[in-house]
Amino acid sequence: MANIKVPKAPTIRRMPTYLHKLMELHAEGAPSVSTTVLANYMNLESIVVRKDLEITGISGQPGVGYKTDELIAAIRNFLGWNNIFEACLVGAGSLGSALLGYEGFEEYGLRISLVFDADPCKIGTSVHGRKIQDISRMSELLKPGMFRLGMICVPTAYAQETADQLVANGITAIWNFANVSLQVPDGVAVQREVIAGGFALLSVKIAQLDAVKNGGE
Amino acid sequence: MANIKVPKAPTIRRMPTYLHKLMELHAEGAPSVSTTVLANYMNLESIVVRKDLEITGISGQPGVGYKTDELIAAIRNFLGWNNIFEACLVGAGSLGSALLGYEGFEEYGLRISLVFDADPCKIGTSVHGRKIQDISRMSELLKPGMFRLGMICVPTAYAQETADQLVANGITAIWNFANVSLQVPDGVAVQREVIAGGFALLSVKIAQLDAVKNGGE
Repeated sequence: MANIKVPKAPTIRRMPTYLHKLMELHAEGAPSVSTTVLANYMNLESIVVRKDLEITGISGQPGVGYKTDELIAAIRNFLGWNNIFEACLVGAGSLGSALLGYEGFEEYGLRISLVFDADPCKIGTSVHGRKIQDISRMSELLKPGMFRLGMICVPTAYAQETADQLVANGITAIWNFANVSLQVPDGVAVQREVIAGGFALLSVKIAQLDAVKNGGE
Repeated sequence: MANIKVPKAPTIRRMPTYLHKLMELHAEGAPSVSTTVLANYMNLESIVVRKDLEITGISGQPGVGYKTDELIAAIRNFLGWNNIFEACLVGAGSLGSALLGYEGFEEYGLRISLVFDADPCKIGTSVHGRKIQDISRMSELLKPGMFRLGMICVPTAYAQETADQLVANGITAIWNFANVSLQVPDGVAVQREVIAGGFALLSVKIAQLDAVKNGGE
C-alpha cells in the first residue's frame, strides 16, 4: 500500500496559489512583497501566511517582507518544480479535455505531452493541440524514463486497469481524477483528486455563515 | 473580507470520499463497516479514520465498526447535505462542461440546473442536458431564493465581475474555479478551487519517495 503521509496538506495545497501571485508580482517588477499583501490575496491571516511560507525555508524580513524572486525559487525548490514534469494523460473525455485546456499547468512545470484514449472516434483527433493516441500503443509510446507522471481521467470502471497499465510501463506517480481508490505497488505515489472535496469545504463555510446569521456570536 | 476559517480542512475534504464508499456499501446491503475497511479504502491509518469520523459526532463501536446508514446520515448532516443545493454555473467552456458532465455531484446533493455563458455561439445550445442561457439574463433568471450557490468557470479576467453579478443577484456561496482571488462582501462564502493544489501534494509525495529510494531511512 502506497501510504504516504503528507503533513501540512492545506499549506502545500496553497503553494501553487502563492506561486501564481508571486510570479504575477515578479512580472510587474516588484522586487518584494509584504506579508499583508499576500494575506489579503490568500484570504488568510498574516500569521498563517508566515507559517505557510516557513515550510519553504524562507522567513519574511520585518519592513521588507519577502523577496519575490527568492520566494519563487524556494517554493519551486520545495515542490520539486525546478524541472518540467512530463506527464501523460489517459482518457480524453470532458474532464481530460478540460485539463488539457488548462493553461495554468505550464506555469507549475507540468507538461502533458502524451494523451491516450480507447475510443476509436477520438484516436487520431486533436484536443488542445495534442493528438490522441490509441491506448493499446501505451507500452510502445511510453518510453522508459520519459514520463514519470500519469493522469487518469477514464471512467471509474477502467481506472484500476489504467493504473496497472501505467505502472507496468514505468509510471511512478499517478494523479487520479476517477472517483475510485486505486491499489498501487510500493514506490508509486498516488494523489486522488476529489472535486467534491472543495464542495464539502464550501458547505461547512455556508453552515458557519448560517450559524452567525441565526444568532450566536 | 469573507475570511472564514475552516479547521480540519483535510478531514472535511475527505468526507465526500467516505460518503461515496459508505453509499456503495449501503447499496450492497452492508449494515456496518469496520474501521479497517475504511482505512484501506482511504489509504489512511485506522486512527486517522476514527479521528476523521468523530467530526460527524459518530464513534465506531469495537467489534462492529460503524453502522453504514447512521454514518451516511451523520456525514450528510455535518455537511448540510440533507437537502439539494441548487446551483448555477457561469462559463460553459471546457472546464464548465466537464463539471456539468460530472455525475458524482448529485450523489452529494449538488444540482447544477442553470448555466450561463456570454458566447453567442453557445447560448441556446445544450451541454449535458442543460440549456445555456445568455448571461445578460442573469437577474431575470436567478429568481430570489431559488439558488444559493454559484460556480464560476469563466476566464480569469471575467471572474471578479461574474462574482459581483452573482452576489448582486442573491448568491451567497461561490465555488470559484478561476485562477484568481475574489473579493466578496461579508456574508458570502467563497471556495477557490486550485486544481494545481493536488499536483503540489503529489509532488511532495514524489519527493518523499525519492528520498526513501536514494538512501535515507
